[in-house]
Amino acid sequence: MRIGFIGVGNMGGPMARNLVQGNYAVRAYDLDAERLAAAGAAGVATVPSALDAVQDADVVISMLPASRHVRQLYLDDGLLDALPPTAVAIDCSTIAPATARDVAARAAQRGIEMLDAPVSGGTAGAEQAKLTFMVGGDAATLARVRPVFERMGANIFHAGASGAGQTAKLCNNMLLAVQMTATAEALALGVANGLDAATLSEIMRASSGGNWPLNVYNPWPGVMEGVPAARGYQGGFAVDLMLKDLNLAVDAAADAGTPTALGALARNLFAMHRRQNDAGALDFSSILRLVAPETEAR
Amino acid sequence: MRIGFIGVGNMGGPMARNLVQGNYAVRAYDLDAERLAAAGAAGVATVPSALDAVQDADVVISMLPASRHVRQLYLDDGLLDALPPTAVAIDCSTIAPATARDVAARAAQRGIEMLDAPVSGGTAGAEQAKLTFMVGGDAATLARVRPVFERMGANIFHAGASGAGQTAKLCNNMLLAVQMTATAEALALGVANGLDAATLSEIMRASSGGNWPLNVYNPWPGVMEGVPAARGYQGGFAVDLMLKDLNLAVDAAADAGTPTALGALARNLFAMHRRQNDAGALDFSSILRLVAPETEAR
Amino acid sequence: MRIGFIGVGNMGGPMARNLVQGNYAVRAYDLDAERLAAAGAAGVATVPSALDAVQDADVVISMLPASRHVRQLYLDDGLLDALPPTAVAIDCSTIAPATARDVAARAAQRGIEMLDAPVSGGTAGAEQAKLTFMVGGDAATLARVRPVFERMGANIFHAGASGAGQTAKLCNNMLLAVQMTATAEALALGVANGLDAATLSEIMRASSGGNWPLNVYNPWPGVMEGVPAARGYQGGFAVDLMLKDLNLAVDAAADAGTPTALGALARNLFAMHRRQNDAGALDFSSILRLVAPETEAR
Amino acid sequence: MRIGFIGVGNMGGPMARNLVQGNYAVRAYDLDAERLAAAGAAGVATVPSALDAVQDADVVISMLPASRHVRQLYLDDGLLDALPPTAVAIDCSTIAPATARDVAARAAQRGIEMLDAPVSGGTAGAEQAKLTFMVGGDAATLARVRPVFERMGANIFHAGASGAGQTAKLCNNMLLAVQMTATAEALALGVANGLDAATLSEIMRASSGGNWPLNVYNPWPGVMEGVPAARGYQGGFAVDLMLKDLNLAVDAAADAGTPTALGALARNLFAMHRRQNDAGALDFSSILRLVAPETEAR
Repeated sequence: MRIGFIGVGNMGGPMARNLVQGNYAVRAYDLDAERLAAAGAAGVATVPSALDAVQDADVVISMLPASRHVRQLYLDDGLLDALPPTAVAIDCSTIAPATARDVAARAAQRGIEMLDAPVSGGTAGAEQAKLTFMVGGDAATLARVRPVFERMGANIFHAGASGAGQTAKLCNNMLLAVQMTATAEALALGVANGLDAATLSEIMRASSGGNWPLNVYNPWPGVMEGVPAARGYQGGFAVDLMLKDLNLAVDAAADAGTPTALGALARNLFAMHRRQNDAGALDFSSILRLVAPETEAR
Repeated sequence: MRIGFIGVGNMGGPMARNLVQGNYAVRAYDLDAERLAAAGAAGVATVPSALDAVQDADVVISMLPASRHVRQLYLDDGLLDALPPTAVAIDCSTIAPATARDVAARAAQRGIEMLDAPVSGGTAGAEQAKLTFMVGGDAATLARVRPVFERMGANIFHAGASGAGQTAKLCNNMLLAVQMTATAEALALGVANGLDAATLSEIMRASSGGNWPLNVYNPWPGVMEGVPAARGYQGGFAVDLMLKDLNLAVDAAADAGTPTALGALARNLFAMHRRQNDAGALDFSSILRLVAPETEAR
Repeated sequence: MRIGFIGVGNMGGPMARNLVQGNYAVRAYDLDAERLAAAGAAGVATVPSALDAVQDADVVISMLPASRHVRQLYLDDGLLDALPPTAVAIDCSTIAPATARDVAARAAQRGIEMLDAPVSGGTAGAEQAKLTFMVGGDAATLARVRPVFERMGANIFHAGASGAGQTAKLCNNMLLAVQMTATAEALALGVANGLDAATLSEIMRASSGGNWPLNVYNPWPGVMEGVPAARGYQGGFAVDLMLKDLNLAVDAAADAGTPTALGALARNLFAMHRRQNDAGALDFSSILRLVAPETEAR
Repeated sequence: MRIGFIGVGNMGGPMARNLVQGNYAVRAYDLDAERLAAAGAAGVATVPSALDAVQDADVVISMLPASRHVRQLYLDDGLLDALPPTAVAIDCSTIAPATARDVAARAAQRGIEMLDAPVSGGTAGAEQAKLTFMVGGDAATLARVRPVFERMGANIFHAGASGAGQTAKLCNNMLLAVQMTATAEALALGVANGLDAATLSEIMRASSGGNWPLNVYNPWPGVMEGVPAARGYQGGFAVDLMLKDLNLAVDAAADAGTPTALGALARNLFAMHRRQNDAGALDFSSILRLVAPETEAR
């Protein structure tokens, strides 16, 4: 199976490498020459354009920053026109569900099956081939290319029709942002009343307050090792990226007329945190600094 | 060991029974004659007043509705004066941490050790002796009466000094209220975009959106069996009780000057839900009706 | 001066009539045949297409529902190409500032001056030529066509460069939505504590709580005559239209990275109100029903 | 008429002076010796205790920091017992409506008429005798002592029965906090999109976004002279005092079961601002710094 891979940055790079190690014939392209060279150095065959990458490809995988890049690549740059009609296109970017549906519909007009397949798991998940894929599109198409996904990830979910993968990702990350912030609030309230953050975390984890951040990604410095809070919120999932996803979620909610009062408030608290604390590049668990600015000075 | 037990309602009743079954000599009292009679019928020795219940008791356990009842019992009605100075007082009511600290300080003046020990686990937990206790007060005192707790619960946590049990409970329930509501928002957003609530729940449960309500107490009708959402939100943990705890949490946050923006918004959404949908007696997962009123009509 | 007028609905219709009465030579077009006929019956010359309307026009005025209609008219349908290069284009629709800037830039490429000029004042303001115009674009251009605006409105503000009219409108309406809702909250809190809504309104109006809704558009039934609250929230400014503006404001805030926590919460409360109370067509002061559902039953 | 005046700080001091200048026989007391001496130096007769101040008084006026001080003075310290039964007690402190009702009920048991009469207008209003009084209690009693109020203030409102003055004050200040914050949000959104803060303020003031802060107390530095924003947010109404009032409002809302989502969010934003920016002593219009931290660096 020949795979064209467009976008080999922090996420796409290791994903492409894992496919090469699975003996897929990968041809990669990236607008950024440095990233492309890094992929080449890591053993991925590189080509000078996106159209070269997809020449005679059975599968195209794209991993791009935002909706407009996906639209540019598939529609404006003519990738859909260049693809063999039997190809399957898999877009792993996190973008607006409406854009995903739109591009997939344009692909379908040319007879090309398209899946939206955003990931969770971060760069560590990409490197260790342990990503979670949330896939929207035809179930039979997913079944056909499932082996490709399995070289890159550990969990492959079929979320529903075209766009459903994107929606699932946005719903998940909106929920994540709220529970990270609410966990910070609960810990701050406890500590302000004399409790120890680690003790309170243990109690809530064993009770109905349990959630993913509390369990494995505690925002309070000193409670867990190996998490961003243990290293000044370096690494992890940046506030800027969380804000991007929250903006997409808020947009999708506005389109659907769905109230998401807590999700929208979380978005605004992250926007506030980014400015107050110049926190765009910090891990999103640094939202604790907005809630309890005195924490690290203790 | 002789135990005086004050307050044998939905929670206190089964707790007292479990102590009797553990061969403790329990004398119970309740202001409500009917509840007291029910405790008697269930095999608990009953007495005509609180002071009778604590006569020569080694341990006093109280399980009352709110701060003012605890203050009334221990201070105004003179229970502290009537207790033997060697007794341990355990208040299992959910009340304001400040009240818990205040009453414990008054007990200490008389040489009486007092623990605040609110519970989670609901009436089912009380009946099956599987409650979680969050205990504030002296660790050595807790060690001494731990066997008493173990007849009534499965998890006994020492949260910290006097009042810390109450604080831990409020922090946990504030976090619970937020994540239940945010889970409802995420599911509503997904379903409005064409996803299946059960599929989306499964995806988020396996991802970073996982939390206690999503995992075991899903608010969307039809996703899980045996939860309140499966029976029109009957039973479970009433909106009115959640509001009581959220009010205590908001008060504690105001006292400490801690911002809890999401917790405060959840409080207001529950207050709104209670009125819009006459929902005070429904389980708190019915907050879904505020977020997605059309759900059950589908 | 010849004026081409595109979009003669509830707002555009009376605006075009006022121009005719000011002796301007107006040619009107609307996609909706019924609305076009009504404009004709009211004395406005009608033509069978947008391109006919702008033939040899000195000024083009458009009054359309949303961003996509403006983009369609000026760009996709080729209106900019059909306009004389000396023409001034005035778009009075309420749309995204980014779209306004984009279309104006495309107009500028053809040498055409374009102003974004959204209005406030409602259908009554349109009929009585008492609209407020918030104008973005070149000040000299505005000076040149000011007499045209003065036939349709009483206040003409130059907000700034291209797009600034739209931004001013969104900022104003976001603030309006928040203060209407907060006024409803304050009145509900007072009445729940035994105060009379009219007395409390009078006190706050004379104090630092004063604001436009409180002063002239009170949401509490029975406090003021002639406002939507006095007639079951019929007429006025519909919840659906307020939601449209709040969505644009939230989008603009996301683009700019500006936190608008209260504005975003107001958006979600209106979205909730729309669903809970099937309130899309009611005046926006009906948000009182979300805050105090029992009000009208008193 | 003899008047006993308890509490002669920043507000009570000038109020007592104004009464002296109106030829009332005032005897003042304050727990703080320095403040009492300052009152004496300003021409107010001082006495060594509260009981001395109210000896044979026709009217007692108190101006104290919080609920607990009012309870302490009238109940615990026995002022009600020391008052002549024909006296009228006027409490001008801003306290919980429930406390005001409670103390007034205890006064009534002794035949003493009591009014709750919190003020707005700040120290400038106190000095210039231009305060606004919001009065709860019997209308006939208010009529009897209205001349006393008129020496201290310009607007005297009868809000309703006992406690209604306090409720009116809390409702007003909750609304004020929301509209100040929302005004900051709207201005920040406009400026981020290229508008001038003064121009946007002028447009919204003339439109439906008009409100008291926008009209006379603009939070954006450089828009108005003579307001706290023009002097680094010094002076004015401190964030700490606004938080006190917001906490009372949130408590009253919780007691009544009234949802005040925007009011509660404003409370939390002020709590966040206080900590992030060490802003407790700054004027409350400094909330702009939370919304647009880069403003003053421009």
